[in-house]
Amino acid sequence: MSNLIEKGTKIIGVGRNYVDKNPAPMPKEPVLFLKPTSSYLANGGTIEIPASMEHVWYEAELAVVIGKKARDVPECEALDYVAGYALGLDMTAKELQATIKSSGLPWLLSKGLDTFTPISEMIPKSAVPNPHDLELWLKVDEDLKQKGSTNDMIFRIPYLISHISSFMTLLEGDVILTGTPEGIGPVKPGQKITAGITGLVDVHFDAERRSTPVTN
Amino acid sequence: MSNLIEKGTKIIGVGRNYVDKNPAPMPKEPVLFLKPTSSYLANGGTIEIPASMEHVWYEAELAVVIGKKARDVPECEALDYVAGYALGLDMTAKELQATIKSSGLPWLLSKGLDTFTPISEMIPKSAVPNPHDLELWLKVDEDLKQKGSTNDMIFRIPYLISHISSFMTLLEGDVILTGTPEGIGPVKPGQKITAGITGLVDVHFDAERRSTPVTN
Ligand SMILES: [Mg+2]
Ligand SMILES: [Mg+2]
Ligand SMILES: [Mg+2]
Repeated sequence: MSNLIEKGTKIIGVGRNYVDKNPAPMPKEPVLFLKPTSSYLANGGTIEIPASMEHVWYEAELAVVIGKKARDVPECEALDYVAGYALGLDMTAKELQATIKSSGLPWLLSKGLDTFTPISEMIPKSAVPNPHDLELWLKVDEDLKQKGSTNDMIFRIPYLISHISSFMTLLEGDVILTGTPEGIGPVKPGQKITAGITGLVDVHFDAERRSTPVTN
Repeated sequence: MSNLIEKGTKIIGVGRNYVDKNPAPMPKEPVLFLKPTSSYLANGGTIEIPASMEHVWYEAELAVVIGKKARDVPECEALDYVAGYALGLDMTAKELQATIKSSGLPWLLSKGLDTFTPISEMIPKSAVPNPHDLELWLKVDEDLKQKGSTNDMIFRIPYLISHISSFMTLLEGDVILTGTPEGIGPVKPGQKITAGITGLVDVHFDAERRSTPVTN
């Protein structure tokens, strides 16, 4: 994990943000949520699955790393505020999320736990000519589960930066997780995730059961 | 706002956490949500009400400021991890929150906007013999709207620290907003909020309409 990402004070997740084969109504506005930076896990680390859960779900995402303070940024200037990109995993306690959604409660417990945001080193923007022409992939053990193009994002990066910065100041090191292509699913204790952005970076994480209880 | 609070990387809000006169079922577990630290507003600042909203709602709360890294902390040691206390306001775009709750969406847009967490200087723990024997108060213009005792919290501070730290590492400067006593309500552009912890600190904030649109 790069120093810049460590400096950040927030992670903003975008919900459903990839077109998929199921003809569902497009969201009119992005679904946004926060994850705490205490949930970061650097490459090679261990994803901790709470004792109360059988599995957690992976979502491979392009992470956009903000390079300087951004407030009310127009779309046409939005990429000036990007320092670089990374491969991030938005780990989600899926069963918990279902309960939480139906009860109208916040998503913190399903997405904010320690180790629930594994992330690669930052790739500087100069190495990424077009962030909407990247291939994201993810394997559980040897099985390829996700492979998608960032060209299939519904809300694209300049729009996301402009939209988010219209109500919330983005600061240096803040990260936007831009949503995940199809193929999400569970990972269990003892399994291993590898993932990457083709040609740019790859990461690996083991999943293990956390030894202490998630609640007391 | 103290340097310690500025160092923090997260604000954890607790939902309904005060006993009130309406006999409603007690929550079994605290409702937790995140606010970004970009929403802080120091004493004397201006609460910005988005152009699309008539008002936002105030919630006066005791803020607990964490003094050192806390993970899996037992209740009996929890107060060792507290550096001090502050008076915080958990500003909420209430109409938006209603829509968001009914659709199962996250609370970020209703609680995470810039200036939505006005907060006092930190009062060091040594000046607060018992954090559950404090009086919180809030006025809109000259009208007293909230006056309650931290003794009426449902989930108390040691439990909250222990519970939260069982799934999420608390870091130096992180803040827990512990919920609000009865009397919450709207504040409109042109009005002024004063609030405090009796005998310890008081703060004042103007509310004004934000000049740029909340979305683009
Ligand atoms: Mg944060
Ligand atoms: Mg996601
Ligand atoms: Mg509140």
